[in-house]
Amino acid sequence: MTAGSWLELALVHHPVANRRGELIGSAVTNLDIHDIARSGRTFGIDRFHLVTPYADQQSLVAELLDHWLTGRGGQLNPARKEALELVRVSPDLAALYAEITERRGEKPLVVATSARAQGQIIPYSALRERLAGGGPTLILLGTAWGLAPEALAEVDAFLPPISGGGDYNHLPVRAAAAIIMDRLLAVV
Amino acid sequence: MTAGSWLELALVHHPVANRRGELIGSAVTNLDIHDIARSGRTFGIDRFHLVTPYADQQSLVAELLDHWLTGRGGQLNPARKEALELVRVSPDLAALYAEITERRGEKPLVVATSARAQGQIIPYSALRERLAGGGPTLILLGTAWGLAPEALAEVDAFLPPISGGGDYNHLPVRAAAAIIMDRLLAVV
Repeated sequence: MTAGSWLELALVHHPVANRRGELIGSAVTNLDIHDIARSGRTFGIDRFHLVTPYADQQSLVAELLDHWLTGRGGQLNPARKEALELVRVSPDLAALYAEITERRGEKPLVVATSARAQGQIIPYSALRERLAGGGPTLILLGTAWGLAPEALAEVDAFLPPISGGGDYNHLPVRAAAAIIMDRLLAVV
Repeated sequence: MTAGSWLELALVHHPVANRRGELIGSAVTNLDIHDIARSGRTFGIDRFHLVTPYADQQSLVAELLDHWLTGRGGQLNPARKEALELVRVSPDLAALYAEITERRGEKPLVVATSARAQGQIIPYSALRERLAGGGPTLILLGTAWGLAPEALAEVDAFLPPISGGGDYNHLPVRAAAAIIMDRLLAVV
């Protein structure tokens, strides 16, 4: 088992916050799926979950995946197919936690990301060691203006905010995902 | 001067390779501009250059920047405006090198990125030290299937490929840019 095989990412579309901090559900973004799947495949993670309760959004993802996994897309671009094979859809976090616990035989460590420091922090070095040693781990990434408090109920710890020294914290979630995987799984 | 203020990125749209390794020019992608500018602003880099010789592509970028820098976009989303203020356009690499040399008073160290190991390698630790110590540095990022040999003429060194241990090397350029800036400029 590689370190990456212990890691799963979830991109949460509900419950998240809008710019006024209100609870909303966001729309699935085609590009988030492709970019995070490609980064995930590069770093050898186990799965990339899209969390959305909306049936129309779930159908959209199913159609997209069908195009790439069994249709014309994968024939033309096998590398893209290989990345999108990581993608799964869950209706909500409770269902995702139950599915991972069932499949892995134990509850994963649930780690959230945030552009602001909050809660119990787990340093990157500690999480890197956990993955190298083996232990199911799920990282939650928020869309829109970030994970809503309702998404944090069963979170065990937070990764420290990614900082370039300034006060600008509007990193795209696609970029944050890439940086987090690089910090945890890069082979140098 | 911060370490980031010594760093400029260039996203090269010509000369790059297509999937058969032939010399082409690629189209400017709206999302690359936004994502890399947001990551660049997070890590405090000095400028983010788009290199394209095509007049229609240059006009497209000018329109986009106008919307965000002086138009409605920046009023609605000041954080996005702040990121896109980093963006400049150059018609080709020779013009970009000349402009930086003129503005900085010395030729920048030109560092290229590649998904495959090649040429003189500069380790991340050495480039991180250079930026912390102060020294103009330009990193070239390729679009499409990567920088063409014609783009490498004045390159001083290559960054090592980003590796997750496997053989999948189809990281989005947006993700690679974020990881590179994090490795060089993150404050931890």
